Amino acid sequence: MTASSMLAAVYGGKGDIHLERRPLPLLQDPADAIVRVRLSSICASDLHIRNGAVPRAVPGVILGHEFVGEVTAVGPEVRKVRVGDRVSANVETFCGSCFFCRNGFINNCERGGWELGCRIDGCQAEYVRVPFADNGLNLLPDAVDDTAALLVGDVLASGYFGAELAEIRPGDTVLVLGAGPVGLCAMSCARLFGPARIIASDVLPERLELARRMGLADVLLNPATDDVPEAVRALTSGRGADAVIEAAGGRDTFQTAWQAARPNACVAVVALYEEDQVLPLPRMYGKNLTFKTGGVDAVHSDRLISLIAAGRIDTRPLVTHVFPLSRIMEAYSLFERRADGCVKCAVRPDDALIRS
Amino acid sequence: MTASSMLAAVYGGKGDIHLERRPLPLLQDPADAIVRVRLSSICASDLHIRNGAVPRAVPGVILGHEFVGEVTAVGPEVRKVRVGDRVSANVETFCGSCFFCRNGFINNCERGGWELGCRIDGCQAEYVRVPFADNGLNLLPDAVDDTAALLVGDVLASGYFGAELAEIRPGDTVLVLGAGPVGLCAMSCARLFGPARIIASDVLPERLELARRMGLADVLLNPATDDVPEAVRALTSGRGADAVIEAAGGRDTFQTAWQAARPNACVAVVALYEEDQVLPLPRMYGKNLTFKTGGVDAVHSDRLISLIAAGRIDTRPLVTHVFPLSRIMEAYSLFERRADGCVKCAVRPDDALIRS
Amino acid sequence: MTASSMLAAVYGGKGDIHLERRPLPLLQDPADAIVRVRLSSICASDLHIRNGAVPRAVPGVILGHEFVGEVTAVGPEVRKVRVGDRVSANVETFCGSCFFCRNGFINNCERGGWELGCRIDGCQAEYVRVPFADNGLNLLPDAVDDTAALLVGDVLASGYFGAELAEIRPGDTVLVLGAGPVGLCAMSCARLFGPARIIASDVLPERLELARRMGLADVLLNPATDDVPEAVRALTSGRGADAVIEAAGGRDTFQTAWQAARPNACVAVVALYEEDQVLPLPRMYGKNLTFKTGGVDAVHSDRLISLIAAGRIDTRPLVTHVFPLSRIMEAYSLFERRADGCVKCAVRPDDALIRS
Amino acid sequence: MTASSMLAAVYGGKGDIHLERRPLPLLQDPADAIVRVRLSSICASDLHIRNGAVPRAVPGVILGHEFVGEVTAVGPEVRKVRVGDRVSANVETFCGSCFFCRNGFINNCERGGWELGCRIDGCQAEYVRVPFADNGLNLLPDAVDDTAALLVGDVLASGYFGAELAEIRPGDTVLVLGAGPVGLCAMSCARLFGPARIIASDVLPERLELARRMGLADVLLNPATDDVPEAVRALTSGRGADAVIEAAGGRDTFQTAWQAARPNACVAVVALYEEDQVLPLPRMYGKNLTFKTGGVDAVHSDRLISLIAAGRIDTRPLVTHVFPLSRIMEAYSLFERRADGCVKCAVRPDDALIRS
Repeated sequence: MTASSMLAAVYGGKGDIHLERRPLPLLQDPADAIVRVRLSSICASDLHIRNGAVPRAVPGVILGHEFVGEVTAVGPEVRKVRVGDRVSANVETFCGSCFFCRNGFINNCERGGWELGCRIDGCQAEYVRVPFADNGLNLLPDAVDDTAALLVGDVLASGYFGAELAEIRPGDTVLVLGAGPVGLCAMSCARLFGPARIIASDVLPERLELARRMGLADVLLNPATDDVPEAVRALTSGRGADAVIEAAGGRDTFQTAWQAARPNACVAVVALYEEDQVLPLPRMYGKNLTFKTGGVDAVHSDRLISLIAAGRIDTRPLVTHVFPLSRIMEAYSLFERRADGCVKCAVRPDDALIRS
Repeated sequence: MTASSMLAAVYGGKGDIHLERRPLPLLQDPADAIVRVRLSSICASDLHIRNGAVPRAVPGVILGHEFVGEVTAVGPEVRKVRVGDRVSANVETFCGSCFFCRNGFINNCERGGWELGCRIDGCQAEYVRVPFADNGLNLLPDAVDDTAALLVGDVLASGYFGAELAEIRPGDTVLVLGAGPVGLCAMSCARLFGPARIIASDVLPERLELARRMGLADVLLNPATDDVPEAVRALTSGRGADAVIEAAGGRDTFQTAWQAARPNACVAVVALYEEDQVLPLPRMYGKNLTFKTGGVDAVHSDRLISLIAAGRIDTRPLVTHVFPLSRIMEAYSLFERRADGCVKCAVRPDDALIRS
Repeated sequence: MTASSMLAAVYGGKGDIHLERRPLPLLQDPADAIVRVRLSSICASDLHIRNGAVPRAVPGVILGHEFVGEVTAVGPEVRKVRVGDRVSANVETFCGSCFFCRNGFINNCERGGWELGCRIDGCQAEYVRVPFADNGLNLLPDAVDDTAALLVGDVLASGYFGAELAEIRPGDTVLVLGAGPVGLCAMSCARLFGPARIIASDVLPERLELARRMGLADVLLNPATDDVPEAVRALTSGRGADAVIEAAGGRDTFQTAWQAARPNACVAVVALYEEDQVLPLPRMYGKNLTFKTGGVDAVHSDRLISLIAAGRIDTRPLVTHVFPLSRIMEAYSLFERRADGCVKCAVRPDDALIRS
Repeated sequence: MTASSMLAAVYGGKGDIHLERRPLPLLQDPADAIVRVRLSSICASDLHIRNGAVPRAVPGVILGHEFVGEVTAVGPEVRKVRVGDRVSANVETFCGSCFFCRNGFINNCERGGWELGCRIDGCQAEYVRVPFADNGLNLLPDAVDDTAALLVGDVLASGYFGAELAEIRPGDTVLVLGAGPVGLCAMSCARLFGPARIIASDVLPERLELARRMGLADVLLNPATDDVPEAVRALTSGRGADAVIEAAGGRDTFQTAWQAARPNACVAVVALYEEDQVLPLPRMYGKNLTFKTGGVDAVHSDRLISLIAAGRIDTRPLVTHVFPLSRIMEAYSLFERRADGCVKCAVRPDDALIRS
């Protein structure tokens, strides 16, 4: 027997997130799938929504856009996934055939973009409807467990995006600003491009320590005590970093990013900024920097899953806490305060232990 | 018999350019060449120097960094050019073997950069010394006359740099902001990458008209009367330009550039700005733009000369005026006032007609 | 009133092509469209099928894979095209979501590939069913007439593919072997990448002349009288062509292709060969050539249509003859004999003049 | 006191390598350096020379092109290296300023190419003259010992070249044919591009075992017992390898290479073949493979040295044997017979232990 309603974390409007019961989602379009959530996460973007900083977010929507689950129903157009498949989801909904999708820019899909947990009901619930399911869901092999796959569709994809944008070449020195979830994922993905050295910078010593312990960073810098651009130059014959990934979004981090870059470097800006920045073109003149501004295009999920299955990427240490859905408000609090060494909070349905 | 002194336009310090007599230059290093100037030009950068806006410029230096001439002496290390060769020069001096040169970033050469007419004596004179002559000089075939080759080493190289940075693909719509010398050259080079359409924007109607007459622009916009981003979107199914080259450096042009770009476009910023700009990352979020900031790497002179010889590029219509060196101060005045339809002023030695 | 049967050119088995009446095609899948053919073509591949050289071809299939038409019916999954739209078709059927499609390799689609006129009924008929219609059909603007759009989906796509594969850079010298339909299209597309010079080689003087007259080739070579590699080296300071497109598929043309290439060049092999070739690796050692073997991925139809609309590509002069469908066997004969200057034969429904 | 002659391994003509005494080399050009050899190697290419399979080799030349040494003299044009510097050498001599060098194709330098130990005296001696020393020599940091640096200039560069050519992307499955020195280096460098999996194939079980023990290969195949293309497809959902590096040069390995590649893959052919191969274009049609033929361009030595210093590459296990120069003929014999698990033989001057 299946219940007709479910628990869900809902964005009630600026400043409000609360738990309430909602009807189970139904198929609405032939390309839809319904997925029973096995494990979802809380993301900094959820807090941005609550803070009113995401204009496209719709009050009343169920939050959450990063999860692993099991397909329970598919529409007649769905070909890739079947009922019973274990899957991870992409943060972005995309049609696969518009101008932007054809060119690989799925974040700007003419019929999609960031929908789940923002404009349509998301995954901080027991079930979720996923549009364009063949594009939105990724099959998981047995070698990849739920925790290992949890971040594939958003945070890990963002880290990969940053690493890919940064045009890292073998032997390079890479600077990653920010050792939060995206920054740590960016370091993990930067390794895939063969740098000689990754330098991590963050104000939280425990996050730097995590980066070191996970084998992601070779050099640790803390802007509270280090002059980051100066320290980077000291490590690189005075030239600066060959590639910079800015995943911090702090008050000064954009300036640090370009100052620590060597001439002709690429600076990937994947942090979500809440304020405009100054672009000092006269001082930059002749340095010939490239800036790539982010927002993820989660088109490489299959590659990421292959790499996880092969043991080349392991983001499980980032999932520091797991809460049952009924206690998700505690999880939000812990996550926001970065208390207890919290990096990412996972959320599981209350009866998950019984079911799985 | 050769004179022992020559006429030269000298940067005397902030606010001052004047003509004076100077000794003829001599070889100083085994890789040097001495070149007799056949045709040189006045560049907006010369005015930037006079205005004190180029800190690396050295008072007392002979100005000028764009010219065609004839080699009159070479040091023992020089292999590519010989006495008697007709050559154009690259604005940048570069060694060819340092880290930056090896990677193609000659603008940041550890022993060079913008030297001529800035830190060492330039070409607004009768003779000029060129360091690392094998890298700094380009052989000219007979099919390329002096006027056709004049802009190869700086303005045309900058236009090519902008077009190359912008990642134009066949069928694209390209927006070029600014129809001055660099902008017109950028349009000419953008054509090489097969766009379906080039849109030119400038506040001076006569420059737009020149762009049209030269066959460089398919659509003309004037920000004095047009809402440029809106007009571009109207031409592109609402998407915006696939590639933008910002060659204007005006008060609003950076904002116009990113607003008129479609999501995931590349914006090449080759204008020389005198003021910091605002980078509104929150409003840009998810648009996934790439910004490439300029300053030219003049490494493609041989390609440009091949294209001129083949008739694929012709910048001669940009050279609207020619003055003898003895009247260069008049040329500066005309150029600065953009009077009489002036785009570029060329300067020739006073006895050039007799000699050549 | 609509007829219940139509005329069609059918592949009866090795050596046999004949006209017969067939039932009108019907929608079979929700992603299908039915298209009334306005103009189709005969292709060398059709002759390869008749000769038994295409093992995947299915006897009994209606031939033809290159056409322009009007949509008369669409399945419920079709979103991009509507009844009444004028469209061109892609030679390849592709799903858009399998591994190969996601990576841009639609020719190897797990559910498609070369289907039309090979494994499923094609367009040498009055109506044709197109699977995955959103991917298989391209909307045509008014500025692009039927003849201008006819080759978009196969021959022009193949030419573009060859030009793109060849990694042409501005200022390069490009050699195109073969001035038949694909070769001429390759020249037209090579122009989009800014070469200084295109050299065309063919044994048929009238085809070379057509290349010259269309403004596609700067130098003409005929292997019957010219030593092609030697002539190319003579034009390129002894180095060889920077890029080679082999669109001939003749007895010696593969050897000519690599011999005429400069060291480190790219040789795009888009010809369809009927015999194995020798790859003389010992003699090539150190020349560091890249060979890209073809078969087209027709993923750029929208770009091509934009370029045609903008007047940058015009393949109409290649369509030298038009026949009504009822006389298609005459067209086959003329095309095969290359008689009367025939390059491409178009075929129109018998009552086309009345209908359109 | 310095001796006036030295011991050297000389190519006497087809079939002959012998030791003899030779005068010490002297500076001949202002860009030359003289280097005292600390450690050199024997390479399969030396055997190719002896076998008469390298037409450019000059009888009478001292063999050897891969070494580490100490600079003992420099000409007046040499800027990067100084007397006393510890350096590795590039197999190729290159000028840095010709057309090919400017484009990164140093193997085809108009004044260089494979010179050392082939056309001019090489390093299987006590001293060696290196032309264009700023390009031919690479500074070694203390963190990189002689053995670690020994292969930088040829075998490791060839492996890197193969890995780079193969266009490996994160998550790919890479097949490397041949687990000899170049193959093992190719695996080591392939790792830098983030593949999920490397498959090694060789007929010698001990070499496969070495690949496994060094952590370079995830799957081992032996063509003596395995159907390599079939086994690769079984591991890749039937698709084939995403990238193939052919470093074996055996009778069947070229055919294995393309058959084991998935459609649209890149096959890097870096083996030195002694016989022509068959290129079966009809059977390949539509598979859209890219073949890149090798011969190394050793332009990335600085990157490789950075990676060695950072511990990302360690080729020391390949140097299985070290002989004094006076016993180099024993070393040749062992190397050729692949006896005693020999992969690479190093050679040191007889008094090296005393000197260093």
